[in-house]
Amino acid sequence: MTRSLVNGKAADSLSIDDRGLHYGDGLFETIAVIGGQPQLWDEHMARLQAGGKRLGLPEIDVTELYREALRVCRGQARAVLKIIVSRGCAQRGYRAFAQTGELTRIIMLADWPEYPQQYYNEGIRLRLCTSRLGWNAQLAGIKHLNRLEQVLARSEWHDPEIPEGLMLDQSGQVIEGTQSNIFIVRAGCLLTPGLLQCGVAGVMRNYIMNAACSLRISVSEMVLSLADVYDADEVFMSNSLIGIWPVRRFEASVYAVGPVSRYLLNSIAAIRQLTGDGP
Amino acid sequence: MTRSLVNGKAADSLSIDDRGLHYGDGLFETIAVIGGQPQLWDEHMARLQAGGKRLGLPEIDVTELYREALRVCRGQARAVLKIIVSRGCAQRGYRAFAQTGELTRIIMLADWPEYPQQYYNEGIRLRLCTSRLGWNAQLAGIKHLNRLEQVLARSEWHDPEIPEGLMLDQSGQVIEGTQSNIFIVRAGCLLTPGLLQCGVAGVMRNYIMNAACSLRISVSEMVLSLADVYDADEVFMSNSLIGIWPVRRFEASVYAVGPVSRYLLNSIAAIRQLTGDGP
Repeated sequence: MTRSLVNGKAADSLSIDDRGLHYGDGLFETIAVIGGQPQLWDEHMARLQAGGKRLGLPEIDVTELYREALRVCRGQARAVLKIIVSRGCAQRGYRAFAQTGELTRIIMLADWPEYPQQYYNEGIRLRLCTSRLGWNAQLAGIKHLNRLEQVLARSEWHDPEIPEGLMLDQSGQVIEGTQSNIFIVRAGCLLTPGLLQCGVAGVMRNYIMNAACSLRISVSEMVLSLADVYDADEVFMSNSLIGIWPVRRFEASVYAVGPVSRYLLNSIAAIRQLTGDGP
Repeated sequence: MTRSLVNGKAADSLSIDDRGLHYGDGLFETIAVIGGQPQLWDEHMARLQAGGKRLGLPEIDVTELYREALRVCRGQARAVLKIIVSRGCAQRGYRAFAQTGELTRIIMLADWPEYPQQYYNEGIRLRLCTSRLGWNAQLAGIKHLNRLEQVLARSEWHDPEIPEGLMLDQSGQVIEGTQSNIFIVRAGCLLTPGLLQCGVAGVMRNYIMNAACSLRISVSEMVLSLADVYDADEVFMSNSLIGIWPVRRFEASVYAVGPVSRYLLNSIAAIRQLTGDGP
């Protein structure tokens, strides 16, 4: 069974000249696979293509990626699909010859992580990271391969009871988890940090914002402080694999799994179990 | 002839699971090779090890790296050696299991770039990049694999007459070139930007600062504005391969190759030609 493809061929290695390795010059997507189908495919590809434009990559052929994705996903009840697209190989130096070069496509399948059911029922413990996110408007929002800030933040703790940490930007505003986005509920409204200077605009974040709209829950992107999180009625984290994890404790603050979190969590869970086209 | 080694074995490919690719989770050094010998080896290794500490990597075995470097450098009159050290392969997710994991060592040889002699005699044209450097004190100074800011800056121009661009940080202060450090001369004193929030502390930058001291030229790290560069008596760029390139023109400003640049340039050139141990 093929678990990985490099430029369409079964392979588990890559040229050491690849710019993905040398400079992190590329993008990635991490996608839930259910019943052989990558979930929220169009949304993942929209972000990938937006990232490609931001980095000045040649057009990414998402039809080809889809064909290759289906090849490795076939027969997988539940799995994780990771797609990496880099600017390919090039001569030495930062200068890219993008418009003439060939992108590298890597498609990898991994086992589905079995998250504890209590994360969904009771919520998770969230900690505050000291590693901060730097600002760079050119790179904000996209899912590029320069992820040392997340690696450093995730290396701050080893307690297996704490599955996620919250990251602030250099000015001390709340931005996101190391591998997830954050939402808070205040007076029935859903709020999430804007990501104009840093952070990754998660596909699940976008899905939740749209779902909230259809459910007539008010949702806004705004500047959020730590105090906003401490004082929130509800807090939850999201990404494409976990869906939604309510937060039951963040530092000294304790939260119930409130009605808005529960409502959104159930809508996502329902779609995931009942159809092959959900998140 | 072996041009590349991966973990000590002749190879030109790498596992697609490597964290260097997935997150840019590693470091690199670009080293001038003269007469089969990597130049400023100890200085490069000191920076590599400092970077490893910053990223929380296991101890880097520089003796092993030296042995491997000599293998690929043997018989090379002039060449470029690139060393990449990544946190190796790991399971999915940002979390690193560094202390137990095996680092990946990649050693690659490339041809020496034949820079035009006029860059040294008359100086180069330098342009101002619009891409800015974000702040992150944890990552500042070290030569890590997250280099999208440099890639974006270098993609801003295609004029082959302009070999380098100057980058500012997010607050508009002068930091460095896309692949070099900057020095200015003002009233006989050598000044270069401090690199506490961003930038790469070049091995040649350090060498020049020490050389200036021994030559009794005053040298300081400080905050430099664009106006400081425009109004400087002399400006030059440095890195391990080029040594020193005087700047003859930066935007509307024109500079002579002044006495301090010339003096430092000649000292470096002399060492490079006369011994195998110079910069």
